Amino acid sequence: MSEQATLQHLKTVTASLEAGTTSQIRYLLNGALPAQDVARLLESSPPRERQLLWDLIDNTNEGEILQYLTEDISIPFLKKMDTKQLLAVSEQFETDDLADMLQHLPETIVKEVLASMSAQNRLRVEALLSYPEDSAGGLMNTDTITIRPNITVDIVFRFLRRHNKLPDMTDNLLVVSRSDRFLGTLPLTKLLVADTSSTIREIMDTETTVITANTSASEVAQLFEKLDLVSAPVIDEKSGKLLGRITIDDVVDVIRDEAEHSMLSMAGLEDDEDTFSPVMKTTRRRAVWLGINLITAFIASYVIGLFQGTLDQVVALAILMPIVASMGGIAGSQVLTLVIRGIALGQIGSTNTRWLLNREIIVGILNGILWATVVAILTAFWFDNLEIAYIIAGAIMINLLFAAMTGTLLPIALNRLGIDPALAGSVILTTVTDVVGFLSFLGLATIFLI
Amino acid sequence: MSEQATLQHLKTVTASLEAGTTSQIRYLLNGALPAQDVARLLESSPPRERQLLWDLIDNTNEGEILQYLTEDISIPFLKKMDTKQLLAVSEQFETDDLADMLQHLPETIVKEVLASMSAQNRLRVEALLSYPEDSAGGLMNTDTITIRPNITVDIVFRFLRRHNKLPDMTDNLLVVSRSDRFLGTLPLTKLLVADTSSTIREIMDTETTVITANTSASEVAQLFEKLDLVSAPVIDEKSGKLLGRITIDDVVDVIRDEAEHSMLSMAGLEDDEDTFSPVMKTTRRRAVWLGINLITAFIASYVIGLFQGTLDQVVALAILMPIVASMGGIAGSQVLTLVIRGIALGQIGSTNTRWLLNREIIVGILNGILWATVVAILTAFWFDNLEIAYIIAGAIMINLLFAAMTGTLLPIALNRLGIDPALAGSVILTTVTDVVGFLSFLGLATIFLI
Repeated sequence: MSEQATLQHLKTVTASLEAGTTSQIRYLLNGALPAQDVARLLESSPPRERQLLWDLIDNTNEGEILQYLTEDISIPFLKKMDTKQLLAVSEQFETDDLADMLQHLPETIVKEVLASMSAQNRLRVEALLSYPEDSAGGLMNTDTITIRPNITVDIVFRFLRRHNKLPDMTDNLLVVSRSDRFLGTLPLTKLLVADTSSTIREIMDTETTVITANTSASEVAQLFEKLDLVSAPVIDEKSGKLLGRITIDDVVDVIRDEAEHSMLSMAGLEDDEDTFSPVMKTTRRRAVWLGINLITAFIASYVIGLFQGTLDQVVALAILMPIVASMGGIAGSQVLTLVIRGIALGQIGSTNTRWLLNREIIVGILNGILWATVVAILTAFWFDNLEIAYIIAGAIMINLLFAAMTGTLLPIALNRLGIDPALAGSVILTTVTDVVGFLSFLGLATIFLI
Repeated sequence: MSEQATLQHLKTVTASLEAGTTSQIRYLLNGALPAQDVARLLESSPPRERQLLWDLIDNTNEGEILQYLTEDISIPFLKKMDTKQLLAVSEQFETDDLADMLQHLPETIVKEVLASMSAQNRLRVEALLSYPEDSAGGLMNTDTITIRPNITVDIVFRFLRRHNKLPDMTDNLLVVSRSDRFLGTLPLTKLLVADTSSTIREIMDTETTVITANTSASEVAQLFEKLDLVSAPVIDEKSGKLLGRITIDDVVDVIRDEAEHSMLSMAGLEDDEDTFSPVMKTTRRRAVWLGINLITAFIASYVIGLFQGTLDQVVALAILMPIVASMGGIAGSQVLTLVIRGIALGQIGSTNTRWLLNREIIVGILNGILWATVVAILTAFWFDNLEIAYIIAGAIMINLLFAAMTGTLLPIALNRLGIDPALAGSVILTTVTDVVGFLSFLGLATIFLI
């Protein structure tokens, strides 16, 4: 379903909801549309409509749809369910999604859900629960097809034919020892062209990329992107035992989340933020960010306040001072954005930081000369005052230089300190460019005008 | 290779470059490191080092490495090659990458490269060249394995065994008619469990998602994400003929580019921006953005200038006015970012715009009340002046309200007009929040104080 189609369905559903005719919606939600599309409809609906739609979904379909919802939306639905419903839903989950879900539910309910499962499945889910959600262990599934190295291709074919269906995204069979130690992979593309009398040991790949369970989700994503993987085995670092496999569909989610993370954080928004979250939740989250930025604004005002006497004498300064701060802010945030992306892509390290800083300083000076001249000329004509023109040109030069240095070094420093540069970077940068902007402009004016 | 590993290799290489000992680097670049890692090293290097490294790469390895470089980096290398080198390199390219590359080279060279190819490959590449780079036709590869519907599973197995190797990411065989019309897919996971005497027609999937060649890359990415595809057939819309297939590795690039696009555009940076692009290129690109924002800054200053008389009488206004503008800017950019992401995800349409606008207005009022009160109290103490406290509270309320409305409606309107909201949105929003901020604060002050 394309964007247009989602919005079209949304129109139909909204019209039916307004008209109070639910039979068509029931039909759409329970089978006529695939679960992924229903999830998109729910994500594109305001809270009240979302709840109405959810109530129209049959219990037997809830599990599949929940797997496609972002957590911001699925957790509230799960929390409202009683244990019996949760048990029913959990049966429809894949093991990795089930483990993610359980991490958000109360301990007592988790125990009941686990107790209701088959011993084998319980062990699998408990194993997954022991890994953080954003690690390879948290991303993996346990639906591997394993074979032994000493059998022949022919026997593998016969073994596979005993299945009704192989798991989705099976591109490799995983070769393990009697004690479950991972030995190598056998890509289906290789199996299909192999001589039927060869043994697996002869044809398997042993130089496969293996991922240890504690690898971070971000590193997993980089490996998948770099090596064009469809799935990769996950092993226990110590024992070398096969634990499960990660498939590209889960990795694509990591990649999208990571790429979105910087943009959302720079505006103080949460990852996975629900576009249609209700008023009070939104107000609370936004208030925090506004409060933090208010501190920045008051610091800037305090700096201006230092020059009250100067402003009192030359009102033109008050008119022009936002230009200096704003040019610094824009220049700085360009550098900041570029460096934050460079860090996220793993491009920036100790060997090239100095080059980057030098380039940004030179770019800052060149653009400083260009725009300081433009602003100076405009100012000279506007206020018919050459002195103020020189002063604003100097202040813009100084501020663009500080913006270049702060934009480059701040995110690198924050990253080394383990602070997310996308979240803290923009606030600190604005503080610097505001303070330096007002300080240099009003300071120079105080020295040369008064 | 993880981030750490790239940066570690970068250190080794940089140290060797500085010491002038190139033998170890040659070894690393020509075989010891996989092509993807060499590409990452190049992307993480400043221009001079990048060129030095490139010169150390053997001609026979250049083609593979070029495929992994972003175009901002690969095109300059390609443009410096003579026709003979280009021909050698093009032989190592996959057809889709070759078509992308040719689009950036002069007509005469394209002709020579095409003329040097086998008739079959030339036809394939010419077909690809006829589609835009950001369409399904531009994304697809022609390495499909096709079978006829009337043969049996057993014959398919024998047919496959005649290959030395199946193409990477082959998860489906594509079933076509005698005239190459697409009929359905046969997933390998289904083939492997099928009865060997069944015919393909009996077991093939006919409800496969097919993609027409003119589908946009963005829609292709949505389909892959939604349906968890590894590969999908591309057909000609009119004839229904199979043209090729798209694989998830190319789609992952589209997903990352799309997710990064908004963040980079909001800072006026280009997609695929080279982190280490040289000084003059960087200066020119940044200058444009600074110039556009300077217009915004001058508009804001003009508005302040309207109240010169008021500022002359009450200098406290000059000190406080940036707070009003800044709070509006922060609140507005939060809404803007959220809506831009919602539009990119296809969540926002005519049915929910009104709800979104209402929510943002209410959130704006609630946060307005909260922060207007806080600012008023702080102002009252700072300047010992209740009137100014009331005025700044009123101005913040007004500006947060405008910020909420502009942040919601502006990107939706820009999107309808076919203008990229991520690129134009932040500039226009800042203009609005600056103008409204200064106008309301200084305007209220002029009415009530003077």
